[in-house]
Amino acid sequence: MGVITLLTDFGHDNWFVGAMKGVIASISPTAAVVDICHEVARHSITEAAFILRNACPYFPPGTVHCVVVDPGVGSDRPAIVVETDRARFVGPDNGVISYALERQEVTHAIRIEDERYLLAPVSRTFHGRDMFAPVAAYLDAGVAPTEFGPAVDSFVRLRRSTPGKLSGSEAVGHIVHVDGFGNLITDLDEPFLAELLAASRQRYFRLQVRDHEVRRLAGSYAEGQPGELIALIGSSGYLELAINQGNARDTLDIEEGGEFILKVL
Amino acid sequence: MGVITLLTDFGHDNWFVGAMKGVIASISPTAAVVDICHEVARHSITEAAFILRNACPYFPPGTVHCVVVDPGVGSDRPAIVVETDRARFVGPDNGVISYALERQEVTHAIRIEDERYLLAPVSRTFHGRDMFAPVAAYLDAGVAPTEFGPAVDSFVRLRRSTPGKLSGSEAVGHIVHVDGFGNLITDLDEPFLAELLAASRQRYFRLQVRDHEVRRLAGSYAEGQPGELIALIGSSGYLELAINQGNARDTLDIEEGGEFILKVL
Amino acid sequence: MGVITLLTDFGHDNWFVGAMKGVIASISPTAAVVDICHEVARHSITEAAFILRNACPYFPPGTVHCVVVDPGVGSDRPAIVVETDRARFVGPDNGVISYALERQEVTHAIRIEDERYLLAPVSRTFHGRDMFAPVAAYLDAGVAPTEFGPAVDSFVRLRRSTPGKLSGSEAVGHIVHVDGFGNLITDLDEPFLAELLAASRQRYFRLQVRDHEVRRLAGSYAEGQPGELIALIGSSGYLELAINQGNARDTLDIEEGGEFILKVL
Repeated sequence: MGVITLLTDFGHDNWFVGAMKGVIASISPTAAVVDICHEVARHSITEAAFILRNACPYFPPGTVHCVVVDPGVGSDRPAIVVETDRARFVGPDNGVISYALERQEVTHAIRIEDERYLLAPVSRTFHGRDMFAPVAAYLDAGVAPTEFGPAVDSFVRLRRSTPGKLSGSEAVGHIVHVDGFGNLITDLDEPFLAELLAASRQRYFRLQVRDHEVRRLAGSYAEGQPGELIALIGSSGYLELAINQGNARDTLDIEEGGEFILKVL
Repeated sequence: MGVITLLTDFGHDNWFVGAMKGVIASISPTAAVVDICHEVARHSITEAAFILRNACPYFPPGTVHCVVVDPGVGSDRPAIVVETDRARFVGPDNGVISYALERQEVTHAIRIEDERYLLAPVSRTFHGRDMFAPVAAYLDAGVAPTEFGPAVDSFVRLRRSTPGKLSGSEAVGHIVHVDGFGNLITDLDEPFLAELLAASRQRYFRLQVRDHEVRRLAGSYAEGQPGELIALIGSSGYLELAINQGNARDTLDIEEGGEFILKVL
Repeated sequence: MGVITLLTDFGHDNWFVGAMKGVIASISPTAAVVDICHEVARHSITEAAFILRNACPYFPPGTVHCVVVDPGVGSDRPAIVVETDRARFVGPDNGVISYALERQEVTHAIRIEDERYLLAPVSRTFHGRDMFAPVAAYLDAGVAPTEFGPAVDSFVRLRRSTPGKLSGSEAVGHIVHVDGFGNLITDLDEPFLAELLAASRQRYFRLQVRDHEVRRLAGSYAEGQPGELIALIGSSGYLELAINQGNARDTLDIEEGGEFILKVL
């Protein structure tokens, strides 16, 4: 009846996602399965957490998000179901769902234990197929979260990267994601930037990243001259660095996690 | 109820397509969403137009095609809905749907303006999510094209590359697409080639591309000897250059847009 | 009503899979279409056969598997429908479905001939669109396999790679698949390995691949120290070589088809 999303680092050159979808179709044939992304950088829990956070607000209430970025598969890391006032999440307890929960109220947090809802035997290397896909499908089919195992008091929540103020007009920020166009998404959100601009009483600013300067805050990619490095508030609500019809990552030679200094002049 | 197709240059390493599908599922939960392609060369309006033209005839009548190859996002380029006797199209007014319309009769052309059908606020960098996905979903859900805004007299129509006759037995052609096998699709269609063959009263021909010669028109890839450069009428109705179990692009060192001379001997 | 899976070597940078889905949606609008994989190595019938075998047990009974890895398209290789007690298969008669049939009983094997169920005209280069997609859709819509053409006595069945015993404690194995993490899947299955371990009365073993040694059989990837080469029984039931959070293929410099010696000490 509902929507099940899949987010993994499995890539597209194998049968892993296909097998998960077969499991789901066998348990909940009417579920609409939507791929969010399967090309998360291998084992990058923070990248998956960031992607999930940006996608999940756009799905219908009650959507089941099944997230399998799981470097600890087969170890004793627990597997969890988390239900909020907006959605349901299934995945390893490694923090991968934590950014998505920021503005949601958690109503249930459950450790997955009941083997009736798992494939038998559960392999030790492919919990996506044997555990997360069937639990997601049973959730979609109407099984209550509490059926899957005992409640847990807490689960892993990762701290997100945050920008820091160095002075009234100066801040340090970080690259949190590089998209496929080479646009650099930072951890400076719109209110943070507005406060900085207000403090300096300027609407003009200069942003310094390594040896490069950005001289204006654009409204859209198209406002930049071809080849010009621009800054803008992107579709996720964060300051982005971009080059219209170019590649900011290559030009700046900076990657996810990289640091930069912002000066409002 | 119906089918919504998606065609973008967003790639698969991010949440962009996933977010669009979330928006669609929220508005029109029963729509069947089909990906045509998300690996269009970045900002290549002509490649997207060519891909859409080749795929759209195979979809059911009334299908909504949502196309987001949009280097001008956030600028003042309009966004349009075009309805024909066969299908409905949603996208930026930059020509990306124009090849698909060749044999279709346009019944409505509308500029998207009514904010009731858009996400609020519309970001200036991700109209796929905030404008094109919701409009596609509302179209699928039964909203008439005229509801989205005013009719427009015209919209961007791109001229397709065409081959030219140099003499009765000689023509100049262009590579319009390179597929993932390295097969080169040209703008020489079957009637054009037939006319050239008729004029020269030969069924044998020699095709010259740079320093290479093709000595026969094959019926299928498998007719070529391994490693042999062959020509054939491909599944889109155009002359293709291919190497059976090899890569014609690499062998010929030619790309999309490249020119070649065809001589019928 | 049912599920149709697609498995091809078409890649994602073109309209080929999209066109097939359009054909299916036109014939059987309620079919749930699931992508197993479209990045099979070009023309690799054995890789596709291996992928299909690993995915198809997880799909509901009666699923239609449409497989298009077809280097002989346009030649006189037949196209077939095979029905078993578990599923239905559509594809070229080149062995691509043969590994999937191992534990299934074949109830019908049919050569596709009836043009009423094909697109007209059938191109000689894209049978995925003109033949396999419509036949898969008509099967899903309830057309009996026998409607598509005459029964055939036999069809191509490929022999799978098998490991060989060199002595009571020594065997030769082969790499049958390299997954996207660089994990190496071998043809040594669990019973074969158990027998070898029983014969040598050891639970400890040493596995030799080129100049590298594996010193233990792990239960999961996470048991390996970062960078340590480990062996484990993977999710497909075969011995795998892997490096926790590393890439075994690159470390061992071995590819699909490569041979190695296993010694139980």
